Amino acid sequence: MTPTPPRDDAPIAPVTNPATESCTLVIFGGMGDLTHRKLVPALYNLMVDGLLPESFAVVGTGRRRVEQEEFKASLREGIEAHSRRTLKDERWARLESRLSYCAVGSDGFADLATHLDEVDARHGTQGRRLYYLATPPSAYGGIIDGLGGSGLNRASSPDGWARIVLEKPIGHDLASARALNLAVNRVFHERDVFRIDHYLGKETVQNLLVFRFANAIFEPLWNQKYVDHVQITVSESIGVGSRGAYFEEAGMARDMLQNHMFQLLCLIAMEPPVSLAPDAIRDEKVKVLQSLRPIAPEEVDDSTVRGQYAEGTIDGEAVAGYADEPGVAHDSMTETYVAARLQIDNWRWAGVPFYLRAGKRMNRRLTEVAMQFREVPHRLFRSDGLTPNTLVLRIQPDEGISLTFDGKVPGAQSRIRPVDMDFLYGTSFDGATPEAYERLLLDAMLGDSTLFIRRDEVEGSWAWVDGLHEGWGRQHGGTSLPEYTAGTWGPAEAHVMLARDGRTWRRSK
Amino acid sequence: MTPTPPRDDAPIAPVTNPATESCTLVIFGGMGDLTHRKLVPALYNLMVDGLLPESFAVVGTGRRRVEQEEFKASLREGIEAHSRRTLKDERWARLESRLSYCAVGSDGFADLATHLDEVDARHGTQGRRLYYLATPPSAYGGIIDGLGGSGLNRASSPDGWARIVLEKPIGHDLASARALNLAVNRVFHERDVFRIDHYLGKETVQNLLVFRFANAIFEPLWNQKYVDHVQITVSESIGVGSRGAYFEEAGMARDMLQNHMFQLLCLIAMEPPVSLAPDAIRDEKVKVLQSLRPIAPEEVDDSTVRGQYAEGTIDGEAVAGYADEPGVAHDSMTETYVAARLQIDNWRWAGVPFYLRAGKRMNRRLTEVAMQFREVPHRLFRSDGLTPNTLVLRIQPDEGISLTFDGKVPGAQSRIRPVDMDFLYGTSFDGATPEAYERLLLDAMLGDSTLFIRRDEVEGSWAWVDGLHEGWGRQHGGTSLPEYTAGTWGPAEAHVMLARDGRTWRRSK
Repeated sequence: MTPTPPRDDAPIAPVTNPATESCTLVIFGGMGDLTHRKLVPALYNLMVDGLLPESFAVVGTGRRRVEQEEFKASLREGIEAHSRRTLKDERWARLESRLSYCAVGSDGFADLATHLDEVDARHGTQGRRLYYLATPPSAYGGIIDGLGGSGLNRASSPDGWARIVLEKPIGHDLASARALNLAVNRVFHERDVFRIDHYLGKETVQNLLVFRFANAIFEPLWNQKYVDHVQITVSESIGVGSRGAYFEEAGMARDMLQNHMFQLLCLIAMEPPVSLAPDAIRDEKVKVLQSLRPIAPEEVDDSTVRGQYAEGTIDGEAVAGYADEPGVAHDSMTETYVAARLQIDNWRWAGVPFYLRAGKRMNRRLTEVAMQFREVPHRLFRSDGLTPNTLVLRIQPDEGISLTFDGKVPGAQSRIRPVDMDFLYGTSFDGATPEAYERLLLDAMLGDSTLFIRRDEVEGSWAWVDGLHEGWGRQHGGTSLPEYTAGTWGPAEAHVMLARDGRTWRRSK
Repeated sequence: MTPTPPRDDAPIAPVTNPATESCTLVIFGGMGDLTHRKLVPALYNLMVDGLLPESFAVVGTGRRRVEQEEFKASLREGIEAHSRRTLKDERWARLESRLSYCAVGSDGFADLATHLDEVDARHGTQGRRLYYLATPPSAYGGIIDGLGGSGLNRASSPDGWARIVLEKPIGHDLASARALNLAVNRVFHERDVFRIDHYLGKETVQNLLVFRFANAIFEPLWNQKYVDHVQITVSESIGVGSRGAYFEEAGMARDMLQNHMFQLLCLIAMEPPVSLAPDAIRDEKVKVLQSLRPIAPEEVDDSTVRGQYAEGTIDGEAVAGYADEPGVAHDSMTETYVAARLQIDNWRWAGVPFYLRAGKRMNRRLTEVAMQFREVPHRLFRSDGLTPNTLVLRIQPDEGISLTFDGKVPGAQSRIRPVDMDFLYGTSFDGATPEAYERLLLDAMLGDSTLFIRRDEVEGSWAWVDGLHEGWGRQHGGTSLPEYTAGTWGPAEAHVMLARDGRTWRRSK
């Protein structure tokens, strides 16, 4: 094994030409669920939109021996079941001709290396390879070492390159994330490492930067002088389903807070970057994480709430409690709900709490960022109806933006009532919105790492979340978690936490 | 004649209890068009909404002798033709029992005084009288003198009061407005004088104060630091119709700019008042007028544009040019379109032009205020699509508020496009919106003069408009005005004026 030393961290100039270079996408876990449900439908739609290069190939790989026809049939089914566009035969034929499967065995990656050289020769993909790790994280170490050991981590031609895409979770805590990052950086330049958080591929998340920095009127209000607090909500109506055993080891803080929600937090709270270069943006995101005040163990009671869903009703259907889900221990202490009060210690956000909450089996599926502004400095209108302005950025569903403001109720009396100014993504733009994976796959091929997580982002967020777990581990009386009925907005303790601050969660009943 | 000396100008505390005191509404011009079309429908709807006092009476008056039945029939027809609610017999009966007519003759107001005392006795209206001058302005002087001469300007009982409502136009220029104001103030306290500008009765106009001062997030942006310029548009699709002879003497600057548009300008540009007391608000409006930079005669070419409509097509129908309208001189120099660049010389608005335009026979009926914000201080996004934010307050039709901002177009490329956040008054509030005259009549009965024009407002705006007319009178080559085709957005010269400033009118084609 001759690992390439990690060094060149210079920012990559933003690619403005969307034409991708010819390349081969190598999917580890080629017969797996992620490939089936997300990657192949995304490839299909990129091809339809004319965004794939002329010279392009997809190689599935894995430990299992799979016939070429079985592999192709599996991908075809994935498109049929999960693509936003229906599959058409002539289009499929175009994609199919570029597909092949090559297993990796106990003898290492030699066969794969040979196969990739053949693919280069056949499809003109010029030794450019994007390795996509669509496997369980436990396989990452072996794959990374295998790529390094076989030299597949290095460009095989002067025009070639080798990049690696990692799916979350990146580690289980700071120590394991660091170990994985070290392992991968031993083999790949950091600039060639693409850690996916699929939230960053969502249109409405990408729009956050446009909203903030392509408009002149929001940024002047975007600070502690005008903002009272921010609420970030990720609520799911689904439970853990068949993922009980996995979830038992994770919990909501690891599964949601550390990645998706911290990414939203960073995009909302960051300073304007010096440019749109990937590292310029990620530098600013890291600064937010660096400014996050740690929650000391003695503060977790005051600043966080954990909860676990009990049986209840969702959409008129009775659902089981978490402890009764398959794969879950009856005395489980894993949180399916987490809420936390975060403070960002910098000039912009001093004194502005960011309330984050994420839960399963909540009242409904909803991801939103709500910025509540301060009250008017002087009350001219004595109406009871006076409500602080709130800006809501809805990520899903009904993607859009709403601004709540006070308006006069028509009539002779001077009554005031909050009303909404609305923008709906769906009705404002024609055509289907691309899936997150389409954008992310394309960007990885383009080498644009803007929407991918840099090593210091991952480790910064784990450092903070580790603090939570340390505090929770020391909590007294900890033989059970607060319960909340499935189909509600979380445990009573979370409402009490905000009530102590004189505030309320949006949609709290 | 023993006129009451004008003195007490102390602010009246805002009335928060909407219960009106019993009173008699005395309408001069009781058989006239305004009574028929606006006043009686407004009264009817106020009664239906339970906003009229139990003890209430309406006395129509005028030079003409009219039978009681003829008077009542005329009002009933007015409601049937113009009320937003259909007339119902039991409701009409309730109103009808309070109606009476009493002509004023050459012998003065003695008969009317006697009649009003009888009405007080019959209806329990306690000597409280609201005199409404719904006559041509030429009659104002005689009526005011008559009221003063007969003592009807004074409260006839300890609980009584006497107020006067004047319709626009208040004068034809500063001198005539001053003369009228002097005459009326010789007879009535200024606090008992209610000068109507029906624009102030419109819900969306009243909402301007709520929008600005009940919300915390707009006021920080409402100044020269963030605003590039403001456009106020009042466009009508109708022509002068049968009012040609009147309009020949007025023109658009007198008919629109001096009153309605200056009221909008004042509400948009004013500082926060110390309270919602009528005089606190009007003090701030007057300060805007005082800060308006006069347009010197040599500047009218650069800062104003006049125009006259030529024949054209509106809604597919051929319409005549202004000079061919009945009552209009063929070589008329009266403007049916006016545009002006105004500067407010104060700290808030220094350097921010306010562009006002008003026209008849324009492309469509539209009243709106559009505030265009400055560009972003630094362009991170290099998209061509970057558009400055614009806040549009639509007064009519489709009353509402829109905010234009830049959003990301869904898709793999980072394209940016302006999109709108919308609030529509009609869909946000149930039930019909009251007519402007309902609010204004009620407020006059309540003695709340917030939505009425104070003497110094009228005179301040005339002073500025007189400057325009002086400049126009000295313009060279003045034997005709620029023409614009009926159904367009005004003369080319108006577009050139904004182009010189590097700006464009909204809806310029």
